[in-house]
Amino acid sequence: MKKSDVVRAVLGDRYHVAPLHHGGQAFAPTNIALCKYWGKRDQDINLPLTSSLSISLGNKGATVDLRIHHGAHDEIFLNEYEVDRVSPFSKRLIEFLNLFRHHHEPRFSVHIKSNVPIAAGLASSACGFASLIMALDALFGWKLDQRELSILARLGSGSATRSLWPGFVEWHSGIRGDGMDSHGVMIEETWPELCIGLLIVSEKAKGIPSREAMQRTVTTSALYSAWPAKVSRDLSLLKQAISVCDFPLLGKTAESNATTMHATMLSAWPPITYAIPETLLAMQQVWQLRSEGLSLYFTQDAGPNLKLLFLQKDIDTVKSHFPQAEIVQPFVGC
Amino acid sequence: MKKSDVVRAVLGDRYHVAPLHHGGQAFAPTNIALCKYWGKRDQDINLPLTSSLSISLGNKGATVDLRIHHGAHDEIFLNEYEVDRVSPFSKRLIEFLNLFRHHHEPRFSVHIKSNVPIAAGLASSACGFASLIMALDALFGWKLDQRELSILARLGSGSATRSLWPGFVEWHSGIRGDGMDSHGVMIEETWPELCIGLLIVSEKAKGIPSREAMQRTVTTSALYSAWPAKVSRDLSLLKQAISVCDFPLLGKTAESNATTMHATMLSAWPPITYAIPETLLAMQQVWQLRSEGLSLYFTQDAGPNLKLLFLQKDIDTVKSHFPQAEIVQPFVGC
Repeated sequence: MKKSDVVRAVLGDRYHVAPLHHGGQAFAPTNIALCKYWGKRDQDINLPLTSSLSISLGNKGATVDLRIHHGAHDEIFLNEYEVDRVSPFSKRLIEFLNLFRHHHEPRFSVHIKSNVPIAAGLASSACGFASLIMALDALFGWKLDQRELSILARLGSGSATRSLWPGFVEWHSGIRGDGMDSHGVMIEETWPELCIGLLIVSEKAKGIPSREAMQRTVTTSALYSAWPAKVSRDLSLLKQAISVCDFPLLGKTAESNATTMHATMLSAWPPITYAIPETLLAMQQVWQLRSEGLSLYFTQDAGPNLKLLFLQKDIDTVKSHFPQAEIVQPFVGC
Repeated sequence: MKKSDVVRAVLGDRYHVAPLHHGGQAFAPTNIALCKYWGKRDQDINLPLTSSLSISLGNKGATVDLRIHHGAHDEIFLNEYEVDRVSPFSKRLIEFLNLFRHHHEPRFSVHIKSNVPIAAGLASSACGFASLIMALDALFGWKLDQRELSILARLGSGSATRSLWPGFVEWHSGIRGDGMDSHGVMIEETWPELCIGLLIVSEKAKGIPSREAMQRTVTTSALYSAWPAKVSRDLSLLKQAISVCDFPLLGKTAESNATTMHATMLSAWPPITYAIPETLLAMQQVWQLRSEGLSLYFTQDAGPNLKLLFLQKDIDTVKSHFPQAEIVQPFVGC
């Protein structure tokens, strides 16, 4: 199955029609997986081996402003700076845009504003591709529903599948070869007291791309075979925790899911670790504080940064121990 | 099954006979597992869930001088310093001695000289209990064979099972409930070019004892179920590597086995890591040097230190990158 086949299946008659407007704009939040997406059953159209579950980060994310451009090439701006057309960042974006146009036409001027660090394991590609597909939908006037947008966002980046909604989102892995059942589903419950602390220990781009790390893990780790059952159990536990607002259950399940994902990478060959010394020290600080009674947990994605999980009542305590953390309340004021 | 039952089964008529001599002395090398012992099928008599394979470190190890002592209590000296009788170190040692005497009689004066750091993941208990059982054998005049000594050393510490021999040793897990088939077996091959670099990044005793870490991993890690098959594959690969002196195969298998063991710990709850920032930096340095063409691998036990694996031809290169490493040639001059 190719990406273009998926696009054709979703758009139907609307495939390769002329744009309805000269521009489209959209915002999508970034999301943090509490149960990780780690391993693909289809490399080409990003079908996952397991379902996953995330929390969207309110107004932290990306805004895309897409306009028809009458130059020889697309132009891409990230936070006001033009990005080199031949950079991996631009290439990946242009490849995605090409799925929706004929012979590179129309050209686009793409302005992305992101308030999350790029490629530091903060799911910048998730909100990037989700906002891009929404902007394309606005520009072409397709009027796709969220499920369809989620399927198309997935073609840009797996985790973008979940960035079409605020709050808790489950990405159903699906079982179909064409992936038409592999998309996000919003979980209705909200949890106003829930806080996320973004603990950036390095803004440098990570070493090995997550796509490659994931693939190496699936093909070489002797422990990966036990991962799908772990995910299945963790998904039930998380949904249970969300439904009754059991924070220790949510925190423990999310942290254990993350450390287990990183464990599968450590057991790959060659071994992969995204931890840097600061990551290790921050993890140990969380464990120490928890042993002293603080209800604090973390999750970690394919990068060195941690995302702290805690409740509103502990904001001041967390701030005192991690003054550098940026605190997000996913269900407050957005 | 209790430890005393095992002692009775091994010693038979010799159980609780009077000492033949006033003292006994023995040396046992420490050993580094190339395929780890991680998980017990019997907590009481240290029966492992899987077999394991080690290399003994020549003259790095412990010498025990055991003498009958006519005081009110045992006295224990470690590298000339008397150890407090109520310390965990002494308690564990006295508990072991009690298996071989009646009502704490005779009392012993135990002088242990160790040239490996205690409790820094350098298997000090392995050489300690192996030399102790040999010294007991000399003192009591039991004349046990190596297999029997290995079974008894196991009661003190699992890894001591392998410290009865120089060179490569496989510890057969065995299947019997009484553990009479769970002992070391020497592998005849030697490999004079093989070098081990002890990279001590911290001499501080480790946090969580390995016994506890192992048990927590077996009972809580979702990935542990995949470990026994990994061990089984790695044991074959290591024996193949040893038989044809294929160093990259030995190095890769040993490193992968170690990182996979640590991965099972990271996926335990609460998560366990023995890495400190210096461990992480040293691992990354090994990976970097390997990517530049140096045939260098590491293994890591339940502590922060690494053991580098390389061949004699690369000693100078390894020394230049790791000047602090203590280099051991297990098959040279011992």
